[in-house]
Amino acid sequence: MSTCTVRVLACLYEKGLDFQLVPVNMAVGEHKNPAYLAKNPFGQIPALEDGDDLTLFESRAITRYIATKYKEQGTDLLRMDDSKESALVNVWLEVEAHQFGPAIYAIVYQRMVIPVFFGGVPDEEIIETNSEKLGKVLDVYEEKLSNTNYLAGDFFSLADLHHLPYTYYLMKTPEAKLIESRSHVKAWWDDISSRPAFLKVAEGMKAEIASEKLSEN
Amino acid sequence: MSTCTVRVLACLYEKGLDFQLVPVNMAVGEHKNPAYLAKNPFGQIPALEDGDDLTLFESRAITRYIATKYKEQGTDLLRMDDSKESALVNVWLEVEAHQFGPAIYAIVYQRMVIPVFFGGVPDEEIIETNSEKLGKVLDVYEEKLSNTNYLAGDFFSLADLHHLPYTYYLMKTPEAKLIESRSHVKAWWDDISSRPAFLKVAEGMKAEIASEKLSEN
Repeated sequence: MSTCTVRVLACLYEKGLDFQLVPVNMAVGEHKNPAYLAKNPFGQIPALEDGDDLTLFESRAITRYIATKYKEQGTDLLRMDDSKESALVNVWLEVEAHQFGPAIYAIVYQRMVIPVFFGGVPDEEIIETNSEKLGKVLDVYEEKLSNTNYLAGDFFSLADLHHLPYTYYLMKTPEAKLIESRSHVKAWWDDISSRPAFLKVAEGMKAEIASEKLSEN
Repeated sequence: MSTCTVRVLACLYEKGLDFQLVPVNMAVGEHKNPAYLAKNPFGQIPALEDGDDLTLFESRAITRYIATKYKEQGTDLLRMDDSKESALVNVWLEVEAHQFGPAIYAIVYQRMVIPVFFGGVPDEEIIETNSEKLGKVLDVYEEKLSNTNYLAGDFFSLADLHHLPYTYYLMKTPEAKLIESRSHVKAWWDDISSRPAFLKVAEGMKAEIASEKLSEN
């Protein structure tokens, strides 16, 4: 269910790397135990341990680390050999984090997290406000994606990848129409969500369970 | 007044670069004109033009571009020659963006933007909620900064620099106590805010005008 963990997994698979996924039992508060807080002082998942002396947190910093360390392996996600391409990847990484992220997070939180985890009722006013915000962001995407196949140019990059987790969940909600009603955004979504690396991650995602739980309510 | 522009200026000064600052008249909606939207489709400031063929937006992407392109000049802000240091800089860049940023933004917006720009009254409940959030984030900073002089280690980096604009304004509000009550955070703030590069930027910041306007109200 953890969108931030999904982001990192998608990156690991794009790079074809071996790794061990160690579950953290949040139901019993394991993420707030001293042993886990030593890995991530904010008590959030995921954290990455690489070798004996490096522990990282913040999913977007972890994917950047993986994409940099394994630059020559698998998909080139940061385009560091071309300073202009690399700069544009960084622009769209920030767009995901600051324009797209807050609006889609609010919608997915209301539609999925509140009913499934807290047995509550989504706040339709929050959904409406954020649907409007997200729609405006996606209008810019629609224009951009009518000129290039991906956000930073005609190449799949970390900027596209970072959109996968929340959009995957959004597509299980009525607000999927925000994507479906924009033809270039829809084509981009169909493309990036059908990449073999993401299909592997999606197999383990619990959206179906969440949807079933929702339809029971 | 633009915190995102301040972030970029602080970076340009740390690098000792020449640049031209072109004001955008937001009062008459210049940031929503087609000419400006061609530079930043989200209609926000700043945008950076470098040469004839590169236009970037999102302040955190612009600073990363400057820090990368001028790696060998001025302060080394991304520590790219050391993969571990560089990874930790990226972790704390994300912490600024996702843990620190949203809480401090909400406080500064209520305390400065609402009264100064809209002649309104700050919402004390929003301030209280976000002061609590920011306090928890700063507890982690306090612990971190009791072990290292700066966030990513014993070196000033882009991660520290990104904290300058909002903290500068926070220090003009009653919520300055969130910084002042934590000795290591306070020492870190005194250090990074007195760097020559930031002093140059602060000269042009309008916090004093905002404070005067506030005291008139």
